[in-house]
Amino acid sequence: MEKSNTVLLAHGSGGKLSQELVRNMFVAELSNETLSRMDDSACLEIGGGRLAFTTDSYVVSPIFFPGGDIGKLAVCGTVNDLSTSGATPKYLSLAMIIEEGLAFEDLTRVVQSIKATAAEAGVCIVTGDTKVVNRGKADKLFINTAGIGVVPLGVQISGCNARPGDRVMLSGSIGDHGMAIMAQREGFTFKVPVESDCAPLNGLIAAMMRASDNIHVLRDPTRGGLTTTLNEIAAQSGVGIEIDELKIPVKDAVRTACELLGFDPLYVANEGKMVAIVAREDTDKVLTAMRANRYGVDAAVIGEVTFEHKNRVVLRTELGARRIVDMLSGELLPRIC
Amino acid sequence: MEKSNTVLLAHGSGGKLSQELVRNMFVAELSNETLSRMDDSACLEIGGGRLAFTTDSYVVSPIFFPGGDIGKLAVCGTVNDLSTSGATPKYLSLAMIIEEGLAFEDLTRVVQSIKATAAEAGVCIVTGDTKVVNRGKADKLFINTAGIGVVPLGVQISGCNARPGDRVMLSGSIGDHGMAIMAQREGFTFKVPVESDCAPLNGLIAAMMRASDNIHVLRDPTRGGLTTTLNEIAAQSGVGIEIDELKIPVKDAVRTACELLGFDPLYVANEGKMVAIVAREDTDKVLTAMRANRYGVDAAVIGEVTFEHKNRVVLRTELGARRIVDMLSGELLPRIC
Repeated sequence: MEKSNTVLLAHGSGGKLSQELVRNMFVAELSNETLSRMDDSACLEIGGGRLAFTTDSYVVSPIFFPGGDIGKLAVCGTVNDLSTSGATPKYLSLAMIIEEGLAFEDLTRVVQSIKATAAEAGVCIVTGDTKVVNRGKADKLFINTAGIGVVPLGVQISGCNARPGDRVMLSGSIGDHGMAIMAQREGFTFKVPVESDCAPLNGLIAAMMRASDNIHVLRDPTRGGLTTTLNEIAAQSGVGIEIDELKIPVKDAVRTACELLGFDPLYVANEGKMVAIVAREDTDKVLTAMRANRYGVDAAVIGEVTFEHKNRVVLRTELGARRIVDMLSGELLPRIC
Repeated sequence: MEKSNTVLLAHGSGGKLSQELVRNMFVAELSNETLSRMDDSACLEIGGGRLAFTTDSYVVSPIFFPGGDIGKLAVCGTVNDLSTSGATPKYLSLAMIIEEGLAFEDLTRVVQSIKATAAEAGVCIVTGDTKVVNRGKADKLFINTAGIGVVPLGVQISGCNARPGDRVMLSGSIGDHGMAIMAQREGFTFKVPVESDCAPLNGLIAAMMRASDNIHVLRDPTRGGLTTTLNEIAAQSGVGIEIDELKIPVKDAVRTACELLGFDPLYVANEGKMVAIVAREDTDKVLTAMRANRYGVDAAVIGEVTFEHKNRVVLRTELGARRIVDMLSGELLPRIC
């Protein structure tokens, strides 16, 4: 494909073109050691302690969807990104870009959702900003949250830390968020309603970290889905990853929706799931801790880290075949988060 | 005026309606002690130290203008907001919402400007996010930066700390940024070109703080201009403020542009100026320090804090009259920053 002179939707997909843009533009120009790690949170030595710092903008359309809304998403996304560095999320900023004409009723609903989600996650919104742009120059509401968390002493969790022999764990079923947005956007209804899994996972992760000191990597498989996330980890750590198709939980309704619409759940976004790469010997302890949490009841061990096929993810299919699953290329569902 | 059911452009003006929205919606719903102070930065006790934390989204149109661009603005704005709490700015996040179709050439120019400004300010961009939305759902490029700074031991600078007898100081001429944007947007040209004053002021503020331990308030008069900022401070501190029209520096070109277009420079946005409220006895020391810095050569003492007319700002005019100058109501220039 010829290189585009302009930014494409796929540059925001979370997949290949996103990675390229981030690597060749932002990391290349603004290079420093922290940014180059390309983790979801930066880990900073500051004021005698270690902090995690992260940011995400949310442009999901529609702003209300089954299982959540843009406000809940904006809190969960940033709480979860902090948690993936092993940090305890503490403080969030909240910046809104509002399109002129947004109903106050909608804004209030979003703010109340932010309040409820922040309370559940135990984080405090301490600073904010509001901009309003002319009608037609944005789409209802965009939200940015940045977050600060405290990294406990001795914790070293990073996408760079996967080691051959480690097990790949997943906190529950995949594809729920993407298919919920898709259904809402297109006006589809299913016999069993598909709801977004959008949830703050800091409690789940705290429980996992109490159960084991050998969690090497944590990452939430959002844009680009499970496969893209695993590819990122394989590349960051310079290892291979093998997963079993049969072990990956997918809800029946989501599977059906994916089949009908031609999506592969492995590439569909999640907003309340966590991938953990854990030392083999601690797998059972971590699994027990995950399943005891409301957001980890369907947790499963789905694969392992290998010496072989470095930087690649291999899927063992239902029929016993093995195929390489690459990161998302192109854009599946724009504005999923 | 009847209360609107929808968000108006004036809710993003930085003036009265912005204050109402922030107070009645965000602070009311998400209330906590830090947020309720309504300073430009939150001051947090974390990891044994004190940190400043702030966020701003930038939606300026056009994205390139005389004296700067949206990237430079995004770094300066957040660096300056951190500095107003007396913090040393350290780390920035960078989140971009890009409209599909933005030229890579433009994006590159913005990123290079971010790089140069961050280098000048001595801050490091450590985490980021990129979203792309469909053509027509945003306007070229919106940027959010959040920032973390370290507050030195013993420093207590807040909009709440102005005391009667303090002097009001201003680091230079007002109205440059707003008029530069206005001229660019409307295609006006002036004999003497009007340029944005957009600049990182952390060096200036560090010099002021070395000169005096008695700087009570710092704030950058951005949206809503000098008058809105002084009104905010008067209300936060529960004091009156009197300023002298003749002592406020305004460049000739800006004054002419304002007269032609019907703007009052007191309400026009600045992006490289600082208001300081300083104990009377330290005024000279601080003024000397300011004038020795490239961003403070035109610094002046423009007024004082009073017991009288609590919560109000009074302007002594050229002709010796006195009038109350309220905060901006309505919207002067949408998307100025």
